[in-house]
Amino acid sequence: MLDTMTRMPLSPTERSTIRRDAQRARTDRSELDALLDAALVCHLSVIADGAPLVLPTTYGRDGDTLYLHGSAEAQSLRLAAAGAVCVAVTLLDGVVYARTPKDFSLNYRSAVIHGRPSEVVDADAKLHGLRTIVEHCAPGSWDYVPHPTAHDLSWTTVLALDLTEASVKVRSGGPHDSPADIAAGGIWAGQLPLRTTWGTPIPSPDLVGDVAVPDHITRRR
Amino acid sequence: MLDTMTRMPLSPTERSTIRRDAQRARTDRSELDALLDAALVCHLSVIADGAPLVLPTTYGRDGDTLYLHGSAEAQSLRLAAAGAVCVAVTLLDGVVYARTPKDFSLNYRSAVIHGRPSEVVDADAKLHGLRTIVEHCAPGSWDYVPHPTAHDLSWTTVLALDLTEASVKVRSGGPHDSPADIAAGGIWAGQLPLRTTWGTPIPSPDLVGDVAVPDHITRRR
Repeated sequence: MLDTMTRMPLSPTERSTIRRDAQRARTDRSELDALLDAALVCHLSVIADGAPLVLPTTYGRDGDTLYLHGSAEAQSLRLAAAGAVCVAVTLLDGVVYARTPKDFSLNYRSAVIHGRPSEVVDADAKLHGLRTIVEHCAPGSWDYVPHPTAHDLSWTTVLALDLTEASVKVRSGGPHDSPADIAAGGIWAGQLPLRTTWGTPIPSPDLVGDVAVPDHITRRR
Repeated sequence: MLDTMTRMPLSPTERSTIRRDAQRARTDRSELDALLDAALVCHLSVIADGAPLVLPTTYGRDGDTLYLHGSAEAQSLRLAAAGAVCVAVTLLDGVVYARTPKDFSLNYRSAVIHGRPSEVVDADAKLHGLRTIVEHCAPGSWDYVPHPTAHDLSWTTVLALDLTEASVKVRSGGPHDSPADIAAGGIWAGQLPLRTTWGTPIPSPDLVGDVAVPDHITRRR
């Protein structure tokens, strides 16, 4: 508990301070944790040849560290290991229908993280980073399949990004129309929620023999 | 049809050419159109004070133009109007469970667009851009609510980004394990699909009188 209580609040620097729609800003790190644990994809931004480059990728979180990984040959990871990055994680929760176009909005949870990742080179630390990513994307899988070999590790780059400099913005609920627009009446206003759910597992056509779908997949929620 | 047939294929430049997992690259612009029309959120990346900055925002597409908008005071839009941007649009379709960690993957559709947006200043063109964005996020709403006033327009910046320099990457289907891992058997492999669906409309608590949910919202799919 002490650890949680002494964690730095969100938005500790000028560039991580939310100015637009500041009432949507969150300061509790548990909201960052919850969002990072709920989403599977982040958008990693680097500077490539003087221009911004943003690519989707997956990740895993352990405490205040975000792990990224990819091929050792990937340009985006090489650039990320050598300089500043910005990472955004966004979940869309619905569309907000208002009485005028200016008050239309989306409901969402969004995190933006700034920092300079470091490459994880120690073999045990690298395995831990990969385990964190695999268990984030496919919980229960790390000990269900063989662990990566030394050869697998040599082809994979793992980066660790400190989550200190991060902000979280959340919008929920209905529209915020002006009193005059509300009083005018006659126009439906509200939210249309978006829901994301897991479907039914689809076995690979090349499965050999009769292999049951394991519980960690059938029970995923 | 001629227009479609003469459109430039995707990935026309070196930086928009997909190198990693090149078999996932698409070249037909209709795949870019379909992805942009299916998603609601993009991630806009700019350079701010020498570091990358990436933020989620919504958008609309008309032909080969992507429209972005926001408060005239938003830093990200000011930077986007003044320099290079990169925009990513990603939809996650599922998790791919393989026989070894290195072959785990995600199924997704992803677009990356490079360019230099221009600010839309002409009032009619600005209205068209806003209409494109509103009709993308909330189809049927533009003519259901009053159009933006001149005052609304003055508080809104609209940017137009040409979609010429864009790439699309798609992964679908099951895992691509090695023949040895497949033959070994004993491990379930396949996909767990993710589905995104619209929920039931939630009326705003401040609705005045009895206003039915309009068809363009109840029928949204």
